Amino acid sequence: MSDPGGTTRRRGRPPRTESADTRDRILTTAREEFSERGYEKTSVRGIAKAAGVDPALVHHYFGTKEQVFAAAVEVAFAPAMHAPEAIAEGPVSEVGERLTRFIFGVWENPATRTPLLAILRSAVNNETAAAVFRRLIAAQLLRRVAAQLDLPDAELRVELAAAQLVGCAMLRYVIKVEPLASADHEQIVARLAPVVQGHLTGP
Amino acid sequence: MSDPGGTTRRRGRPPRTESADTRDRILTTAREEFSERGYEKTSVRGIAKAAGVDPALVHHYFGTKEQVFAAAVEVAFAPAMHAPEAIAEGPVSEVGERLTRFIFGVWENPATRTPLLAILRSAVNNETAAAVFRRLIAAQLLRRVAAQLDLPDAELRVELAAAQLVGCAMLRYVIKVEPLASADHEQIVARLAPVVQGHLTGP
Repeated sequence: MSDPGGTTRRRGRPPRTESADTRDRILTTAREEFSERGYEKTSVRGIAKAAGVDPALVHHYFGTKEQVFAAAVEVAFAPAMHAPEAIAEGPVSEVGERLTRFIFGVWENPATRTPLLAILRSAVNNETAAAVFRRLIAAQLLRRVAAQLDLPDAELRVELAAAQLVGCAMLRYVIKVEPLASADHEQIVARLAPVVQGHLTGP
Repeated sequence: MSDPGGTTRRRGRPPRTESADTRDRILTTAREEFSERGYEKTSVRGIAKAAGVDPALVHHYFGTKEQVFAAAVEVAFAPAMHAPEAIAEGPVSEVGERLTRFIFGVWENPATRTPLLAILRSAVNNETAAAVFRRLIAAQLLRRVAAQLDLPDAELRVELAAAQLVGCAMLRYVIKVEPLASADHEQIVARLAPVVQGHLTGP
């Protein structure tokens, strides 16, 4: 691996000018490593080696392996983090369709689907990874979406709506059950939008 | 490991009297091995060793590793295979509630949840395992449920209903997102039964 920043094997804090680049490179590498190997088989040492930096630098920027994973999940979920805005903008009567379209947009795009899938796989297989996933999803995504709904049981409503969308993504993109896997995107949105709307704003 | 049947290291077909017991023991061991290690890390040799039999006997009864996995999945899904009957019996207007109660009954019971989870984990992580899962789920479960509905798009309807139930199981039992993870079982059934009914028999 090339070493443009000259940070390999050098210990301690890097100069401020190259910090952001190195941090990004470690994070991209970490996401790739977690994607390819899963949570359990990935190590901070392995991430450092693949990124061409000293393991101490990975610890310096992110902390433990769990914290590196949390940072990688956060990056993978960055596109989905706009969901609260998708909920907030426009009429309440169309919130189900907006959220459904938004989530399917993220899943239909291979650039965002691949890291999401990788993180989902780690979360399904490892309790520590699941805890990170849970904290991020619950605190950062579902609660922010729920905050847009003025209802006492908003969090449960959002989670049941998310369950419909996550389950559909599982069967369509991961297990690839037919006819769902090949069904037209618009047909799925037309079927799921009223269900999501019902969960969010129904009686 | 003890060897009550005396089959260890003996090659060729066992006497008929002990065949069923040995076959069951291999299958139970296989399910445990796939559960603990996942599809990729499990080998026919490892299953044979844990079951106290010759690898040739595993091949004799089941064939390849993929076929052993399929047999183990089939056993794990045996309780869920009664879903078509849950659909068929009773009034059509209550089919959503019957199916929802049935599936949650399987998930709420640790004895049936553990093998289901293990198989789901393998399917999420490995394409061969996903293909086995897909064939079994699609051909044996979803299509039989769909056959009970007299509608042209019955298969897609059943899959979208399954997506709601699978997604809820993922968030509740695997990722354990709150408040869904601790929500009362009856409350979840009350929320999901109309959604499942809508997917199956709605406009």
